[in-house]
Amino acid sequence: MPRWEGGAQARLTRAAYELYLERGFEHVTVAEIAERAGLTKRTFFRYFDDKREVLFSGAPALQDAVVDAVANAPGDVAPIDVVVAALASAGSAITEIGEGARARQRLIESSNDLHEREMIKMVALRDAIAVALQARGLPGSRAALTAQAGVTAFQTAFERWAHAEGSADFGSLIDAALDDLRTAVNPVVHPDPPPPPGTS
Amino acid sequence: MPRWEGGAQARLTRAAYELYLERGFEHVTVAEIAERAGLTKRTFFRYFDDKREVLFSGAPALQDAVVDAVANAPGDVAPIDVVVAALASAGSAITEIGEGARARQRLIESSNDLHEREMIKMVALRDAIAVALQARGLPGSRAALTAQAGVTAFQTAFERWAHAEGSADFGSLIDAALDDLRTAVNPVVHPDPPPPPGTS
Repeated sequence: MPRWEGGAQARLTRAAYELYLERGFEHVTVAEIAERAGLTKRTFFRYFDDKREVLFSGAPALQDAVVDAVANAPGDVAPIDVVVAALASAGSAITEIGEGARARQRLIESSNDLHEREMIKMVALRDAIAVALQARGLPGSRAALTAQAGVTAFQTAFERWAHAEGSADFGSLIDAALDDLRTAVNPVVHPDPPPPPGTS
Repeated sequence: MPRWEGGAQARLTRAAYELYLERGFEHVTVAEIAERAGLTKRTFFRYFDDKREVLFSGAPALQDAVVDAVANAPGDVAPIDVVVAALASAGSAITEIGEGARARQRLIESSNDLHEREMIKMVALRDAIAVALQARGLPGSRAALTAQAGVTAFQTAFERWAHAEGSADFGSLIDAALDDLRTAVNPVVHPDPPPPPGTS
C-alpha cells in the first residue's frame, strides 16, 4: 500500500476509519490511531476531542451549508419545503461519497457511544435550522417543529440510503421519508366513505 | 429545617436538586452532594453513574409505563393516537408533581450536558416505543417515524408546560403540539385566497 500523503488531520482520520473497520470501534485506542498515522497522541488531541469525534469532523460544514440554504431560500416556499430542500442538497453531497459514507453509517450503528454522539449532532443541526427559520419570520415553536420534522426525514432517508443496494437518489429518498412522516402523523380517515356519485 | 429521613437514593436526589438550584448544576460536585446528604461519594456512585443521572432516575419507569400503554392499547386505534395517548398519560403523571418537575426542566435547560443527556433519554424512549409499535404489527420504518412524531409532540408539550403560568392540562398540550406538528409537515395550500368581504 503506498504511503498516503496528507495533512495530519486527514492522516489521522484515515487511520481511525481503517482501524475502526478492521477491529470495531470499541477495540481501538487513540494511541493505535496515532501510531497507524505515524503521529503522536498529542497531535491526535490537537485535532479531535476524543476518538468518537473523528467521525463527526464534517458536522460543522454540513450544518453551515444547511443553515445557509435555509437562509437563502425564496420567501414564498413553505418552511418544511425550505428545510427539506436544504437537507436534500446536503445529503446528496454526502451520499455522493458513496461507500465511505455507508461505512461511516455502519460504524455509527455499531456503537452506542457513536449513536449517542450522532443524535447530539442532529439535535444541534435541528436547533440551528430552527434559528434560521425564526430569522425568516417563523414563530419559535413552529420553527422548532418544522426543523425537527426535516431532520427526522433526513435521518430516515439517510438510514434507507445506507442500507439500500445500489445508488438511490437522496432527493427522492428524503421526499419519500417526508411523505411517510406525514402519513404517520396524520389522522387516519377510514370510515368507508361512499364514492361520490358519478365517479368510479 | 427538619432532618429529612429517607433512603440513601432519595436523600442524595434531594441534596443534588437543592445544590443544583442554589449554585447552578455546573458548580456542584459529587462530594458536595454526598456531604449535604450526610453520605459518602462512594454511596453516591452506588446509585448514580454521574451527577447528571440524578435528574434521570425516573426515565426507566417513564419508558416502561409508555411501552406498556402502547402494548395494551386497543387494536383499532391509529398508531399515532396510541403513542400520543400513552405519552399524555405519562406526561400527566409528571406534570402533577408541579413545581418540582418545572424546576427539573429549568435545570436541564440551564446546562448543555444535561440537555444532551435528556436528548439521549428521549432517543431511547423513541426507540422503545418503535419496538412496541412493531410488536403491534406496524412496519419498522413507519413505527420509527410514528414514535419520533409522538416524542416530538411530548417534548414540545412538556416545554410549553414548564414555561406556562398556572396549571395547563398536559393532555390538551400534547394534542395541541401534535396538531402543530401536522401543520408544520403538511403542504401549505394558499393560492392567494381573496380576503373575505367586509374584512381589512
